[in-house]
Amino acid sequence: MKLLEERIKADGQVRPGNILKVDSFLNHQLDVSLLEELGKEFYERFKDKGITRILTIEASGIALACCAAQYFHVPVVFAKKAKSKNLDGDLYTSTVHSFTYNKDFTVTLSKKFLGSEDKVLLIDDFLAVGKAMRGLIDICKQANAEISGIGIAIEKGFQCGGKELREMGFPVYSLAIIEEMTDEGQISFRENP
Amino acid sequence: MKLLEERIKADGQVRPGNILKVDSFLNHQLDVSLLEELGKEFYERFKDKGITRILTIEASGIALACCAAQYFHVPVVFAKKAKSKNLDGDLYTSTVHSFTYNKDFTVTLSKKFLGSEDKVLLIDDFLAVGKAMRGLIDICKQANAEISGIGIAIEKGFQCGGKELREMGFPVYSLAIIEEMTDEGQISFRENP
Repeated sequence: MKLLEERIKADGQVRPGNILKVDSFLNHQLDVSLLEELGKEFYERFKDKGITRILTIEASGIALACCAAQYFHVPVVFAKKAKSKNLDGDLYTSTVHSFTYNKDFTVTLSKKFLGSEDKVLLIDDFLAVGKAMRGLIDICKQANAEISGIGIAIEKGFQCGGKELREMGFPVYSLAIIEEMTDEGQISFRENP
Repeated sequence: MKLLEERIKADGQVRPGNILKVDSFLNHQLDVSLLEELGKEFYERFKDKGITRILTIEASGIALACCAAQYFHVPVVFAKKAKSKNLDGDLYTSTVHSFTYNKDFTVTLSKKFLGSEDKVLLIDDFLAVGKAMRGLIDICKQANAEISGIGIAIEKGFQCGGKELREMGFPVYSLAIIEEMTDEGQISFRENP
């Protein structure tokens, strides 16, 4: 998606260790006008799939998921990373390793918000190795819900997550796929498959 | 706001310890159509204040803040509860006690996203004792930013947070103020001041 690629080139910052900082518009400060355009693009791709729920993971997936939900007119539900006193009842749980935070999280979702009748669109801001997305897939499997789409804002195409998920047959749609980033800050993009 | 009060009565669940669960529409599953209406209501109240940024705290404030931002056409920025490897540069930090999670969090915000030129609308889903909101206020003070409004979805009017913030002169607007909750599940609301 040209709009997102251009924004990444303009405002993204490459840091050593293959880190791409997009905190000025995607995951710390949020450019909601941009997120609405990204949400609309997910809708164009997945609008015929009968989506009943959008599932994401806190925290940075929430904004993008909400902006997409406005077009799908379905609820968003987000997996939580911490055990809240207010989470009771039956829970789906999965363990996710975060490279950003360098630790394992147990993510949880109340069973009442996802079931076998659901056709789910999974949304997240980033896809790299794919650990967070596999946690969400695991939760959908526990719920016997159908995964009807996976929408990603930025995929690090040089890491294995997107390739593996596509090989497993999941309909992954990444709005920007980074082919290569150099320490000098050059970013090149891959054509969307 | 009648729409929210009715939804709380219909779908909120009162639990012992003055806990109100609204996880079916506000902070686990998200009814984005409802959140848009709440966002529009904040806009009606604060549209003449010259708001330049909406500040919230992860995770459950993000959705509401984004829905409000669509009307204000300003960026959202959210304070983070964990130290990410990707957070570098100068940070505002504040310590917040969460009763929900029963621990202290250090919340952080990159200094580049809030400054003395900003007129800020603070948004959160709940206001009870007010610990999270005071963390956001503390961050605004560090930034010398002006607090032009505080928008809350649900205020627990029988706890001290809203009263104290109003006495300090902050323009707090809570869309639903709970006067009383009984263990039998009865909820009564207070007229908005």
